[in-house]
Amino acid sequence: MRQLTTQTLSVTSRSRCEIIDLTGQVEKIVRENVKSGFVIVYVPHTTAGVTINENADPDVKSDFLKKLERLVPKTEPYYEHGEGNSDSHVKTALVGNSATVLVEDGRLLLGRWQGIYFCEFDGPRRREVYVRPVDLSGGG
Amino acid sequence: MRQLTTQTLSVTSRSRCEIIDLTGQVEKIVRENVKSGFVIVYVPHTTAGVTINENADPDVKSDFLKKLERLVPKTEPYYEHGEGNSDSHVKTALVGNSATVLVEDGRLLLGRWQGIYFCEFDGPRRREVYVRPVDLSGGG
Amino acid sequence: MRQLTTQTLSVTSRSRCEIIDLTGQVEKIVRENVKSGFVIVYVPHTTAGVTINENADPDVKSDFLKKLERLVPKTEPYYEHGEGNSDSHVKTALVGNSATVLVEDGRLLLGRWQGIYFCEFDGPRRREVYVRPVDLSGGG
Repeated sequence: MRQLTTQTLSVTSRSRCEIIDLTGQVEKIVRENVKSGFVIVYVPHTTAGVTINENADPDVKSDFLKKLERLVPKTEPYYEHGEGNSDSHVKTALVGNSATVLVEDGRLLLGRWQGIYFCEFDGPRRREVYVRPVDLSGGG
Repeated sequence: MRQLTTQTLSVTSRSRCEIIDLTGQVEKIVRENVKSGFVIVYVPHTTAGVTINENADPDVKSDFLKKLERLVPKTEPYYEHGEGNSDSHVKTALVGNSATVLVEDGRLLLGRWQGIYFCEFDGPRRREVYVRPVDLSGGG
Repeated sequence: MRQLTTQTLSVTSRSRCEIIDLTGQVEKIVRENVKSGFVIVYVPHTTAGVTINENADPDVKSDFLKKLERLVPKTEPYYEHGEGNSDSHVKTALVGNSATVLVEDGRLLLGRWQGIYFCEFDGPRRREVYVRPVDLSGGG
């Protein structure tokens, strides 16, 4: 097993809620570092997450954000958190803040339509994403 | 650490939304390959996921699907995705498309009532599930 | 890689729905066992989960529980599960029952505001949480 460490990506969101494709950047880290194993994508924020979903039709992303907005609207009469972004925290907890993708032969084992998406729920902001390649290929 | 690779299970769903038990098949892969470590179960589709939940009363599964259907119905006036399965993508993002289960002494460390469930949200279809056993027992 | 095994934490909840901070206990296990790698926190129950969210303002936690209660109320006319806790199973599936946190230099790579939270959805009860440190630092 090769000794790797966590790498950090920088992401800049431009809206309050936005989905940003990270697949290419994660793929690059994996190609250089992992033969067989997996990669952990981790978002170190409490109002942004990561999900794996369709990368073909952009309507899938916007329908997802619209539905999530209806389920968890920005304002509810019972929210007490002073920063006014309780919805962002709830959305993050529902979507999750990490994703694990398998790797074989240096390639992400994503399904044909899958992409890795950063989910901004309280932008626009500058954000970080940690990427931890894990190589299990034995390596002497 | 023993050198393992990802294995693929085949799953056939018979309804649009359906929960299918994978526990036995994952257990078999783990028993043969892992002493101490974990297993990653990954669904390479964008309209199907995986969850860990109760394996005893089948009403838990049907109540789960019914509740999810009420939260995320098939049709919403604001959906724009042409394939008409935006709900399937949203359900998948909420449930998640991977599960990690710990292993000790070659056995899944599932709780007494836990099972590993494939979640079909746009069937009936033939699907694949990737299973990646990770053995951390030193392999000397 | 050092040979580690799964450790078990004990958690006692005092309400039906409650969020309990596990960060310190997970940090202690990691500090003693992992130089570079990650830790898997796994809840072996079907009516309790784990999430990563804000550890600063306690209103974030209560707003989260209130919102989740509105989305998935305890009673629905169509629930059939005899134990009357179908909502607890649904909440668990939405939040998830495991969390992975990266580690470098023996420290959890949590974001500034992040904590690791046990989510009780059918308490009060005595619960267990499995913690699996994974050290990838080479170890000879």
